[in-house]
Amino acid sequence: MSAAAGFAPRRDEPLFGRLAIIGIGLIGSSIARAAKELNLAGHIVLADRDEAVRRRARELDLGHEIAESAIQAVQDADLVILCVPVGACGPLAQEIADALKQGAILSDVGSVKHAVVEAVAPHVPAGVHFVPAHPVAGTENSGPEAGFPSLFLNRWCILTPPPGTDEAAIARTRRFWEGMAAMVEVMGSQHHDLVLAITSHLPHLIAYNIVGTAEDLGQVTHSEVIKFSAGGFRDFTRIAASDPTMWRDVFLANKEAVLEMLGRFNEDLAVLTRAIRYGDGETLHKHFTRTRAIRRGIVALGQEKAETEKLKQG
Amino acid sequence: MSAAAGFAPRRDEPLFGRLAIIGIGLIGSSIARAAKELNLAGHIVLADRDEAVRRRARELDLGHEIAESAIQAVQDADLVILCVPVGACGPLAQEIADALKQGAILSDVGSVKHAVVEAVAPHVPAGVHFVPAHPVAGTENSGPEAGFPSLFLNRWCILTPPPGTDEAAIARTRRFWEGMAAMVEVMGSQHHDLVLAITSHLPHLIAYNIVGTAEDLGQVTHSEVIKFSAGGFRDFTRIAASDPTMWRDVFLANKEAVLEMLGRFNEDLAVLTRAIRYGDGETLHKHFTRTRAIRRGIVALGQEKAETEKLKQG
Repeated sequence: MSAAAGFAPRRDEPLFGRLAIIGIGLIGSSIARAAKELNLAGHIVLADRDEAVRRRARELDLGHEIAESAIQAVQDADLVILCVPVGACGPLAQEIADALKQGAILSDVGSVKHAVVEAVAPHVPAGVHFVPAHPVAGTENSGPEAGFPSLFLNRWCILTPPPGTDEAAIARTRRFWEGMAAMVEVMGSQHHDLVLAITSHLPHLIAYNIVGTAEDLGQVTHSEVIKFSAGGFRDFTRIAASDPTMWRDVFLANKEAVLEMLGRFNEDLAVLTRAIRYGDGETLHKHFTRTRAIRRGIVALGQEKAETEKLKQG
Repeated sequence: MSAAAGFAPRRDEPLFGRLAIIGIGLIGSSIARAAKELNLAGHIVLADRDEAVRRRARELDLGHEIAESAIQAVQDADLVILCVPVGACGPLAQEIADALKQGAILSDVGSVKHAVVEAVAPHVPAGVHFVPAHPVAGTENSGPEAGFPSLFLNRWCILTPPPGTDEAAIARTRRFWEGMAAMVEVMGSQHHDLVLAITSHLPHLIAYNIVGTAEDLGQVTHSEVIKFSAGGFRDFTRIAASDPTMWRDVFLANKEAVLEMLGRFNEDLAVLTRAIRYGDGETLHKHFTRTRAIRRGIVALGQEKAETEKLKQG
């Protein structure tokens, strides 16, 4: 923990009495570490359907308690966060619904929001506040060991509460994420899915695809692809190392938006392909010049450290 | 310089008497810094057709001398390295041909090799050794300020000498790059272009394309794309910030191999697209799982630091 010590102020009084985290992967274990270190919850209980993961979580001393089941974990919880693949949120919500405490806040961390709202909302009991969330943060690593408390530092967390959601519940969820040093934004679930389709889902699909293409090449050996990956390919492989189950669910759950972005991507790629085929250097140069602006915006916004890049690629 | 001090041993005796670097950009200025710091050449002279760049090079104290012209720079040079965009190598070689010293080594740093060999070779005088080179290293930054001496540390430099090239000249060129802490590999120019088409050229084209697609979206604002770029898009923007002129030339010069890789990429993407459209989660999961292996290979080979990733994305 010491590595991340002081990345955010520790609270004197916890925000929530009991926090239940269902699903102990990269995100779930990171929330547990941050919430414990920063005193965001008085008692933190985690659950995972995988017995081996529960054992690992105990060895890692995550939270204050590892429950045997999701239903046990959510008993009397003031905040319940579902940290499971998008496709598992609906069934899980149905499973724990009757065990949720009146006045509790139910949230998640799914990368797709509209499908999660549609799958979870019907199971949310009256008197329980559903505040969907998506922390836009991650690494190429998965599992309880992969998490670390500062994962959300300076990262955005998008809340997509359905119309009519209790404002106080939204405010408390916002404070919880801001307590982990994240920046919070609120938007509609469908708009979220459109924004993430281009900023995250399409990039992941493209990266998974190009790495697959490279693996199938006959003329270029596997070791050559690895050796000379510093030329650009390397960055795609990191993205293409993300959790397969999580991403399968993302693409199935955000199908419409992803297919829409794929269509635009293919049209644009056809233009560049044609410019290459016919030796139209002017079209290429014009395109390559305008794409520099958006990069400058990202570095300026502190979402990226140019120096890190220099060292990394150098 | 201190930042890079000690990244490689300094030679007591220089490898070359006079080194001429034509083109003072990221690569040219990095070679000048490394060669001077590590004593790889007794006298280092640089030239650039842009007067403003020459002035900047003097202010940065690059090398030992800034010549007014390429012809002046290559006088009596034992090693001449063309550090200009691929498309400029042929004309430049023709311009300096008569000024090259007998026994000199002529090299370059182009990201495409076969087209460079075809454009430069006809101009190389008898008694001058042509040893094409491609250091697989770079950053998103361009220009004389962007260079740094450790840019080639633990990076590959590929030599593609035409059949019959003097072995001693190849060996000296290898020692020069190994002197800058690079790892050297020798292969045919056409095979090089195929390897780089998939490990570098296609990734750059895809990145340039997706960033352009994002910029044209009506429903998602420019600032939203920037704010939520940590979900994967960010890595593409770095690649898409690379020098437009250099990359225009790369795609025009390696057209056949790039179009071939684009064809395979599109076929593979069609399969994933179809799987998404028809909800075929098994095909997606299978694909996303196998792409993890190549990432592990890259991290294992030390071409990437997993920890850097964690901090960067975290």
